[in-house]
Amino acid sequence: MAMATANNGVNVQALLDAREALKGAPEAAKFTWRASCKWKNGTNSQSAVKGFFGLGQEQAHKTETSFEADHPEIFASEDHGITPVEYLLVGLASCLTAGVAAVAQNRGIQLRSVESKVEGSMDIRGILGIDSDVRNGYDNIKVTFKIDADASRQDIEALVAQSQKRSAVFDALANPVNITVDVA
Amino acid sequence: MAMATANNGVNVQALLDAREALKGAPEAAKFTWRASCKWKNGTNSQSAVKGFFGLGQEQAHKTETSFEADHPEIFASEDHGITPVEYLLVGLASCLTAGVAAVAQNRGIQLRSVESKVEGSMDIRGILGIDSDVRNGYDNIKVTFKIDADASRQDIEALVAQSQKRSAVFDALANPVNITVDVA
Repeated sequence: MAMATANNGVNVQALLDAREALKGAPEAAKFTWRASCKWKNGTNSQSAVKGFFGLGQEQAHKTETSFEADHPEIFASEDHGITPVEYLLVGLASCLTAGVAAVAQNRGIQLRSVESKVEGSMDIRGILGIDSDVRNGYDNIKVTFKIDADASRQDIEALVAQSQKRSAVFDALANPVNITVDVA
Repeated sequence: MAMATANNGVNVQALLDAREALKGAPEAAKFTWRASCKWKNGTNSQSAVKGFFGLGQEQAHKTETSFEADHPEIFASEDHGITPVEYLLVGLASCLTAGVAAVAQNRGIQLRSVESKVEGSMDIRGILGIDSDVRNGYDNIKVTFKIDADASRQDIEALVAQSQKRSAVFDALANPVNITVDVA
C-alpha cells in the first residue's frame, strides 16, 4: 500500500470533513449550478458560467468562462464551437476523471496518468423528425479509461467503478432528470 | 407572417434537404460524437473535442477545442475550470437555443434576441455518500428563456416547445441513456 505517500492533488481530508459537517447541515448541501446563454446567429450561441449557490450562500468561480456552441459545416452551419451534445461528453469524462483522482487519493493509490475517450452514438433521424421511433439524444455512450497507477488492474477497475457510482454527471445522463423549460 | 424576410442565419433548406436525403439512407444518419480527456492534477482535467463520425465517414470540426474542468475552491480544489455538471447546463442551453433559431427560421419568425438562464439543483449529500437516498446528479433543471422576436407570446412559447421536443440534449438528460464505463 502506498497510503502514506500517494499524492494525486486531491484534498481528501477536506472532503471527509465536509461530509461530516454536512451530515448535520442538510440545507448547506443544496447547490444550484447555473449557466446563461445568448444566441449569436444561426445555430451559434455563447454561454457563460460564473456564479453558483451552495453552502447556504452565493458563490462564484474565480473567473467567468465562456463557451461557444454551434453546429458543424456538414449541417450547413459555421462551426463556431463544438455541438451542444459534445458538451455532455466533456462533462461526463471530466466528472469520472475527477472521481478517479479522488477515490485513488482516498485509497492511497498513486496515479501517474488517467486518460479517457468518450464516444456517444446518435441517430440524427431523431432530431430531424424523420422517424418518431428514433430518440433525439444519445442511444449509447461508451467511456474507455487508460490508467497508469501504482495499483493492480483489479484495483484500477475498482477505482473506476467507484467513481462511476459517485458521479453526478453519470447519474444525470443515465437516469431521468426533471427539466422545465419556460418563457419569462 | 414574415416568412419571406426572416433571416436568423439558419439554412433551413439545407436541413430539409438533409431530412429528405437521410430518409433513404438511414446508415448515413448514424453519428458518433467524441471527446478525449486527460487528468492534470487533483480534480482538474482537460478535455479535447475535434473529430466525429457521420454521413458515413470521419468528420472533424474546423479546429480542436480544449475544455478545463475542476472543482471550486470551496471543495478544496483549485477552480481551474467549471465543474463537470456545469458543462451539462452549457449543453442544454445551447441546444435549446440553436433549436429556437432553427424553428423560428422554419416558421418565418425573425428573432432579435434569445437569452436564457439555466439552473440545476443538486444535493451534494449524494456525491459525498452521506445519504444513499439522495441522488448524485441534478434533481431538477430549470431553463428560462427571454426572447425578443417578431411574433406573439403564444408563437414564442410554441417555438420554445418545439425546440424542446427536438432537442438532443434535453432528451439525453430527461430520459435514461445507456452508458458503459470500461478500463482499456
